[in-house]
Order: sequence, then structure tokens, then C-alpha cells
Amino acid sequence: MKKFKVTFYPDKKSVEVDEEKTILSAAISAGVHIDSVCGGDGVCGRCKVIVRRGEVSTQPSGLITNEERKKNIYLACITTIHGDLEIEIPASSRAHFEVPSGVLNKGLEEVYAPSEEIEPLSVAVDEEIFSHSPLATKLYLEIPPPELDDKVSDLDRLYRAIKSKKNFPLLQTGLTNIRGLSELLRRSNWKVTVTLGKRNDATELVLIEPQDTSAKNFGLAIDIGTTTVSVQLVDLISDRIIGTRLTYNKQASFGSDVISRIIHAQKDNGLEELHLAVTECLNQIIEELISEHNIDLNDVTCVLCAGNTTMIHLLLRIDPSYIRRQPYVPTANLPPTIRASEAGIRINPRGLLSCVPGVASYVGGDAVAGVLSCGLYKEEDLGILIDIGTNGEIVLGNKEFLVACAASAGPAFEGSGVSSGMRATSGAIQSVKIDPKTLRASFNTIGNVKPSGICGSGYIDLLAEMLRSGVMDKSGKINAGNSSRIRKGASGLEFIVVPKEEAGEDILITEADIDNLKRAKAAIYSATSVLVKYINFDFLRVSKIFIAGGFGNFLNLENAIFIGLLPDIEREKLIFVGNSSLAGGRLMLLSSAAMKRAREIARKITYFELSVEPRYMEEYMAALFFPHTDFKLFPSVKAG
Amino acid sequence: MKKFKVTFYPDKKSVEVDEEKTILSAAISAGVHIDSVCGGDGVCGRCKVIVRRGEVSTQPSGLITNEERKKNIYLACITTIHGDLEIEIPASSRAHFEVPSGVLNKGLEEVYAPSEEIEPLSVAVDEEIFSHSPLATKLYLEIPPPELDDKVSDLDRLYRAIKSKKNFPLLQTGLTNIRGLSELLRRSNWKVTVTLGKRNDATELVLIEPQDTSAKNFGLAIDIGTTTVSVQLVDLISDRIIGTRLTYNKQASFGSDVISRIIHAQKDNGLEELHLAVTECLNQIIEELISEHNIDLNDVTCVLCAGNTTMIHLLLRIDPSYIRRQPYVPTANLPPTIRASEAGIRINPRGLLSCVPGVASYVGGDAVAGVLSCGLYKEEDLGILIDIGTNGEIVLGNKEFLVACAASAGPAFEGSGVSSGMRATSGAIQSVKIDPKTLRASFNTIGNVKPSGICGSGYIDLLAEMLRSGVMDKSGKINAGNSSRIRKGASGLEFIVVPKEEAGEDILITEADIDNLKRAKAAIYSATSVLVKYINFDFLRVSKIFIAGGFGNFLNLENAIFIGLLPDIEREKLIFVGNSSLAGGRLMLLSSAAMKRAREIARKITYFELSVEPRYMEEYMAALFFPHTDFKLFPSVKAG
Repeated sequence: MKKFKVTFYPDKKSVEVDEEKTILSAAISAGVHIDSVCGGDGVCGRCKVIVRRGEVSTQPSGLITNEERKKNIYLACITTIHGDLEIEIPASSRAHFEVPSGVLNKGLEEVYAPSEEIEPLSVAVDEEIFSHSPLATKLYLEIPPPELDDKVSDLDRLYRAIKSKKNFPLLQTGLTNIRGLSELLRRSNWKVTVTLGKRNDATELVLIEPQDTSAKNFGLAIDIGTTTVSVQLVDLISDRIIGTRLTYNKQASFGSDVISRIIHAQKDNGLEELHLAVTECLNQIIEELISEHNIDLNDVTCVLCAGNTTMIHLLLRIDPSYIRRQPYVPTANLPPTIRASEAGIRINPRGLLSCVPGVASYVGGDAVAGVLSCGLYKEEDLGILIDIGTNGEIVLGNKEFLVACAASAGPAFEGSGVSSGMRATSGAIQSVKIDPKTLRASFNTIGNVKPSGICGSGYIDLLAEMLRSGVMDKSGKINAGNSSRIRKGASGLEFIVVPKEEAGEDILITEADIDNLKRAKAAIYSATSVLVKYINFDFLRVSKIFIAGGFGNFLNLENAIFIGLLPDIEREKLIFVGNSSLAGGRLMLLSSAAMKRAREIARKITYFELSVEPRYMEEYMAALFFPHTDFKLFPSVKAG
Repeated sequence: MKKFKVTFYPDKKSVEVDEEKTILSAAISAGVHIDSVCGGDGVCGRCKVIVRRGEVSTQPSGLITNEERKKNIYLACITTIHGDLEIEIPASSRAHFEVPSGVLNKGLEEVYAPSEEIEPLSVAVDEEIFSHSPLATKLYLEIPPPELDDKVSDLDRLYRAIKSKKNFPLLQTGLTNIRGLSELLRRSNWKVTVTLGKRNDATELVLIEPQDTSAKNFGLAIDIGTTTVSVQLVDLISDRIIGTRLTYNKQASFGSDVISRIIHAQKDNGLEELHLAVTECLNQIIEELISEHNIDLNDVTCVLCAGNTTMIHLLLRIDPSYIRRQPYVPTANLPPTIRASEAGIRINPRGLLSCVPGVASYVGGDAVAGVLSCGLYKEEDLGILIDIGTNGEIVLGNKEFLVACAASAGPAFEGSGVSSGMRATSGAIQSVKIDPKTLRASFNTIGNVKPSGICGSGYIDLLAEMLRSGVMDKSGKINAGNSSRIRKGASGLEFIVVPKEEAGEDILITEADIDNLKRAKAAIYSATSVLVKYINFDFLRVSKIFIAGGFGNFLNLENAIFIGLLPDIEREKLIFVGNSSLAGGRLMLLSSAAMKRAREIARKITYFELSVEPRYMEEYMAALFFPHTDFKLFPSVKAG
């Protein structure tokens, strides 16, 4: 197959591509943006380009006028390359929606972690649910051309070739693929690669490409948290994780929790702003990931997205209002599989997006993905999954039943809303020790670089060490003492963890920060406790507690118990599983069985509404202490 | 539910519609055109309108800029009506493609037949395949609203309500319907009508409308012939035919047979021209039909289209080139069900279009539909279906096997390409007698009005009577005689059927016309004969011959045999079935079982290529005589 050079203006970016590729596809490969809202179906007419020089072929389209045709204007998505080209992209064909300025909170800098630092920790994975069957599969086909005694139509011929490799159920495709099919098959000498996607119980012929591109097929597992979004790039052939990036959710400028986001969505243009804010950060880290690993965006064919119910509504631009209106019903818990481009996510324009099914307004697909990845749904004995996030979720159960509740913890453990907080990425202090005599903190950072701030696991250590060293009392007040490390700030006392001489600027914790962290840990602990009591059980009889969240690489469980975030049970029962939502999404990206299992889990989980439970507020108030007002609940802490 | 008045400018057309309807839907009801290529998915951005006055609500869309928002510009497809409105349609949102001038051949006037004149004649219909299950079904639902102890999501609630009425398999819907769902359900007080469509083995939730509109659901059966297109409007609730219209296929200006159309399609912009030519005539008669019967275009939810393989390719804008290149393979015989708007057919913008599956390049869905409607596929004994059209098709077989061939007859029997030819519509001479003494013709016309021309059945009678009266000899030459009815014209002798004193202008037949008709009848007869011989059979042993075509209300079988169009067999074996392609399409529109059966028939038919059969040319040459050079084949004619 011939290769041609395509140069885009005014970007002056060039790319070498195979003959027969579309101009849109070449632009994506070159990292040049051209508007396209219909997913390359040739119906939106947004991707008009001017062919300045070179040979192309195109499909007829009612969206190009005769005048435009004379000016060599073509639709990039249905025009294929047959020579070296110079393409001009008019301003009108640029992706013309920018996130409104000011959305990006200045405090939320884009610091990315090298991918290996935030791999989800390994969790026990059921072999049964992990059979290789990704959301989108590529198949290379060498199709016998028609002959006088074998005159099956081109489409049936293609289907027959696909079925001879594997019997995909309910094979279907759209008119766009069919319109160019005969030409493509003949020009590529009957050697093509098809991408087959699972779409709402049918198999869609998503893409047909000339020649063998089957060695390159990538997918994305995405976790959209209220505060943090994570994207993991996965090789769909080897099932290998290639890289992971995370960033703050830019929606944070519109409010730190889901309720304030829902309120903003009801404002004029608010839903659109929130939708654009999240897709912008996703597209940004997707592009960084693929360029870091030298992958062509066209080879990213599918996305599996987990998130709480509000996040998924906003991603899909579905009005979330009814989530917070009695009786708190979302529009959809199981949205259909769509083209990623319909949700504004930039991968191959025809690539698919599937979301993890949710349970209820405040227990979303992130919890379902967590249950799937930690295996809670198949345990004999009772276990708990505590997903510590801004909108935390707790699931309790075993293979017989599952019950879940939400705990609004706020973003403190994700390093947001606290003075020196940061995400668990390069430069974040992830563990801390305080010398009781000098009150100097020793610490280590992710990536072993100069500290830039403190992430969730660092805060847990810091609180525990401040308690142990007497810097802070059990109510969370800093003891004014005779140390240069403690000083009076604008809003009360503050403790300097790393002075500016070492870090560039002071890394510190204030009493207001401690209060934020205390309320977060109290919300998590009390929700878990009420849920356990709701089924008339006892923490001590729970066989396993899976702790999930974006803390960093590890969590000092001893310290998490010491501050009263986790219940005081045998340490071997506590298992830190990292971002279990992302891990569950990845399982679903790679396996049909996992996808089916996730739907079963979503149906099985019973939602328990904490706010209608009178005990909850009592429990919460009692937990606003380190570790708890009822010391009997933390015998090992008391002993220590 | 409240009703509001919506007025469109510059058309100044008003319509009264229910609250919650979209502006696009109101425009369709008002008969005002607004561009929409995505089927109301809100992705193409073509349907921008200015709301001059009145209250609307809309979904956020990246296709409306902030400037446009300030100017009250909205997308008509996702903006709903909440008060009396004045809407301005900018020129840019007008369907901006007109059929190129000159496409409409001046000879092909638009004369429409009153619908009752061209009902397909009744054919034996299998009860088994005619169970009421139309392509699109409406269901009225009163949905229990969510409560604290029933918090299923809105989408699942809707699905549950649908399934409680009937278990539709694989229920799915698109994001567009989901985005507006929660608002719509609540505003309509949980009373909605859903339209469910069969789409590629799944059930698609096509439309959700407020309140009970289930009493109004209409579909179209369409037959696209090379020369004539027919549209039948069907009530999908009562299964009643409301009306039928036919017109000439405007593609005729680009060539009278499929080969010349395919050649034109390969020219620059040719495919688009052909596509527009056929959709223009379809849209024109669709609009006339619905306005004649006071039906709202929004209530037309589906289309079932039959046609030969080339016609279906051109309708779907699929390049037909490979149909005429060795080894003559079409791109698709079974195109997927799509939105009618994707093919440019104007019904409800989200309505569906399904095509009758075809067999091969020259045996299309029209033949399959014909076999379905006449029941050939379930006969014990051997039967034949002869579909006499420009691209005629002959199918021979029974419940064991079916074999088909194509016979390129030209458009003469459809009244095209002959001096005084016209379609079988009002004013067409449909039967003729000639007084052997005076050579004056007595005749009757469709609608009993003044004659305008001669249709197929008229020509068959005319040829037979010219033979009987000695006006013409058996080779087709007019006998110059001593009659004012016979005169010398520009290209040989001509016979005046109705002089201009009676008809306004002379209605006549020339030797060139006779030659055209003779070649047409020879093509049909010889193809049938070769097919019968191919399976080593004999006409006399055939149990039934179904004759289909757009001749008019009736066909004088005796005369058809007399001129050698049909074989000379027992008259009771000959059954005239009218437009069997349209009738089969209607069956499929109304019944799932018929649709399934059509696919089986398409798979079962073996295509027989006449052009590779050496006997064919011999047979054809022998048939260029009235009735035939071999008189032994027509014993009853000889006797007569």
C-alpha cells in the first residue's frame, strides 16, 4: 500500500499516511483538530477542508455546494487520500468550542504523574470474567474477490469473511461504511481490517480500513471523579496497560461536590459548560498519553467510562436536575453505547463509548466497577468496599446480597480544598514521620522529587503523626508550642511540614485543613458504621474491607485506623486496592463477561439512603474526633 | 395538554401543535421545509431557526455559538414549544438542494391517478405472514411516576412500562431521546406515546411524544421502478391502504435503463444528481398523498421500499458502478434499516426506512417482494412470476426452489419512449377495439375522461387489434392502405388512434413505436422461455403464471397472448397481480413475518444470467414477430 504525505495548513503539520485513509483520519494522526460532530458519518458537514494540492477521491454529499466544489472544498471525513496533499483547514472547521476562560482554577495545576506510579494495585481477578473480548476488536481479512460463480454482494462477502473467523452475533453497520465499501475493497486488493464493536447487544462494524492494521488497537478506561479524572491507555491486543494519567476535573470551578454541579447545570448554558469542562480535561490527558507513547489517535477505538451518576450525566450532556429532586431519580443508570464523539471525547471519530451501569442517583458506575474489580460480589463472607472520594461510596455484601450508600466526604483526601493539597502525582508527599522532639517532618514524595504538596496518603500519615507527636490534640486543634514549625496564620494556627527553604514555598497544614480532613474521615467512617448496623452486623465479623481511592501508591493502614478513618479490625482484613473504579472499567473494556457481570452487580445492589436514617447524624458527630469519641471502638489505638 | 400556534416566516404558514413538540416537528406539520440531515439527533446543526417571539425550551448544544444564542437562534430539532411562537427560518436552513433544472423531462408530465385506480389487485395472502406487526408501532403509556420506594431511573421506568405491554427484544434508544426524557415525562405528566421501530434485529425506541398520539401511525410502501415510482400510504393501525400515487422516475432524464443510469452515476456529481432526482419525486408524491388525506407528516413513521438493485443503490447514494463491471456484484443486497432522512426521504425526521432485500445485480428487491406477494414461494407446483417493467424480472419456481433472470424490456409498456405513451393514470387509454372496416378505434380511458395518451394495457390491445384489423402485419409493419387513419410521418407510417379533433392532439402509434413495443415483448417472452428451458421444463406444464406490472387496472390476457407477450397456455393459469412489488413491500411494512419471509426468499432465489446463455439471442430474435416466428408455440392464436 502506498504512503502519502499530507500537510495541514495553517498548522504546517505533516503526517505520512496510507493511501485510502480519509483526510479526517490523517488530521487526527497529525494531531490537527478538525470539527466533526457526527462521527465521520458525513452528515454534519462540519469538517470542510480545502484541498490545495494533490489527488483525492470523495463520496457525493449534499453538504457541499457546487460553488464549494469548484473551490476544492471537501468533507474531510468522506474524502480519501490518493497522493501527497496540501490541506487548508478554514477557521470555520476548527473545533470552535473552548472551555470558557476562568474554568481552570489556578490552584489546580496540571502536574502529571509518570504512568507507572499510579497503576491500580493488583486485585484478585476472577479468571472467569477476564476472557479476552474487548469492547472493540480488530480483524484482518483477506477476502476472496467475487467471481462468476461466487457473486455474493460486497457487504455479504465482508460479513461472510468476518463470520468465518468468529461468529459475532447480530452483525450490523451504518450506511457510511457501506457507501465507500466497494471502492475500498477493490483499491485495497480485498485486504482490509475491520473494527467490530459491541453496541447494545449487537455487533457493529465500526470501521473498515485498508490493509492490515490489526496489530494496533487501543482502548481507554476512564474514571471521572468529582475532583479527579483518570485515564488509562490499554493495548487491546495484549491486554497490557500502556500508561495512566490523571488530572483534576475542571468542573471543580463550578462547585466542589455533585450538588453544586447539578445546581450549576440548571443555569443558562450551565450544562454545556460542565460538559465541556470535563471533556476538555479528558481530551487533554488522552492526547498527552497517546503522544507520549507514540500512538495514533485513530487506533484508539473505544472507551469504557466509570463515574458517579452525576458525572456520567454531565459527560453525556443529560440534564442531571432530577438527581437532586425528590424522589431522586436519575434519567438513566445504563446509558446506551454511543460513539465517543457524541460525548465530545476525541478518539477515532467512529470509536465507541460505553459507561459502567450505575445503581441510583448517588451510587454510580464507579461503585459497580469497584465491586467488580475487588470481587466483593463473589465472596462467601461479608465484605465492604470503601471508595474514598469526594462523593464516597460504600458497598457492603457478599455473593448473596449487596447494599450501598453514599458518603459526601468532600475533596480533602484528593488534595483539593486544603492549603497544600495536591493529587497523588509526582512531587506529592505520600508518607510522613514527625520527630516528636524537633517536630521536623521526614517524608517521601512520589517520584522522589522535591515536594510540591501533600496527597491523600500523606495527609493520613500527617494527621496520625501530629497526634502522636502532640502537635495536634484529639479534637483537631493544633497545640501552640514553643516551635518554629507552628505559627499563627490568617485563620488560626498552622503547622509547617516543609519550610519554604526546602520546598520553594511553605508546605503546611492549617486548623481549617484539619477540620476539612476530619469531616471527610467522619463522613466515611460513620457511613460505613451505619451501613453495618443497618444489616445488624458488626465490624469485627466482617471478613474483608477493600479500601479504594486516589491516595497514591500505598496507604498506611495503621495510620488510617489511628485517625479513625477506617474501623479498628485485624489488619490482615484490610486491603488497599487503589482506584478500583478505573480497574473495574478496564476489566469491562477488555472482557464481555466482565461487562455482563457489571450489569448483574448494578441490578443486585440495593441503595440505602443515609439521609433518611436518623442514626447517621449522631454517628457522624461522634466521629468528628481522632479517632472517635467512643474510644472503645478503637481498642488498638487506645492501647498504642 | 395545551396547544399553541406556531407561525413560520417567511412562509407565513401557521400550525397549531401540542406543547412539548419540537419546532422541527411543527414545521413538518405546517409543510414548511427546514434542513435536517441527522434525523433530529441534534448533531448536524442544519436546522437553525430564529425564535422571534414566544417561549421555548432547548437542550444545550455545541452547535449554537454564544452569539447565536444571544440572537435567539435555536436548533429546531431539540427546541420544544411552550407558547405561541413566531419562527423565522433563515435561508441557510432551507433544504438547499434543488433537482438541477432540466431533470424533469418535459414529456413526463405529472398526472396523478386517483388512488383507487391503481390499488394492487388482490393476491392470495398467506395468513401466516400477515400478522399485524408493522415496521414501526406506537404505544401509549401511562407510567407510574417514581416514588421513594420505586426509584428506578426514568429510562428503565420507560422500558419497564413498554415491556409490561409487550416484550420487544433488545430494546435500545439513542442519546437524543434520553437527553430530553426526564423533562418530557414530567411535563407530560407521565403520559407519553412511544414509537418502536424494528431496526436490524433490535427494537429501537424511535420517538417519545407527549400524550396519546397512538391513534395516528402511518407508513409508506414504495416501489422505485426504473421508469415509474409508486408510493402507497398505509394506516399502520388498521392495516388499511389510504391512498396510492405514482409518477415517472425523474432519473429518466439521465437515461432510460439502469445501465445508462449507472454510467451517469460515475460522472462528476452524477450519483448525487440521480439520488436527488428520485428523492424529489418521492417527496413530491408523499406530500401530495398526505395533504390529500389530511395527515401530518410527523405521523408517518416508517417506509418500506422495494426496487431493483440499481434503484436501491441510487436511493441510498451508494455507488452502483460495480453492478455493471464483471463479475457484476452489487455493494449490498440487504442494506441496513436506517432513518428515512439519511436517504433524503421526508417523513418524521426520526422515522425508519427499510428496503426489501435483493438477490443480485439485476434481480432486486422488487422481484423478491413480488414473489412474496403472489405467494410463488409456497406453491406445490411450478409457477412463474413475470414482472413486466423497464428492467423486467422473471422468477420461476415453487416452494422447493426459485430461479430468476432479468429481461431488459425498456420503458415502452410503461408508456415511456413511445409517441403517445403515458403512465396508467387518469386519461390513459387502457383498452382499445378497432373497427376492421372503418379502422376507427373505440377505447376507454382511466377515469373515463378525455384521452391524453396510451398506457401499457392500451398498447397491448392496440397491437392485437391492429393485427386483427390488418392495420399492421405480423412483422410490425403498418399496411399503407386507403384510410385517413394511416398516414406517413417523419419516420415511416403511423396509425392515428384518436385524431386531434377528439383528443386535442393526435394520439397515434408509429412504426418506431411498434418496434419498441415488439422488442419489449420479445425480451420478456424469450427470457421466460429460456428460463423454462433452462430447468428442462415446458410452458404447458406450468401451473400458474403471475403477471405483474404497472399496466393499469386490467390486462387483456387474450391480447397479451395474441401479440406474443405471454405464452399461449390455458387462460385460467394466467393471473394478473398488478404492482406486486408494491404489494410485497406493503406486506413487509405491516408484518415481521413477511419481512423474515422476504429474506428467506432473497436467499433462496438463484440468479440466472441470460447474457451468458447462448440460446437467449436466438429466442429473442425468434420472438421479434407477432406473436412469434414459430407459430406452433401459439396454437390458439393461429386458430383465432
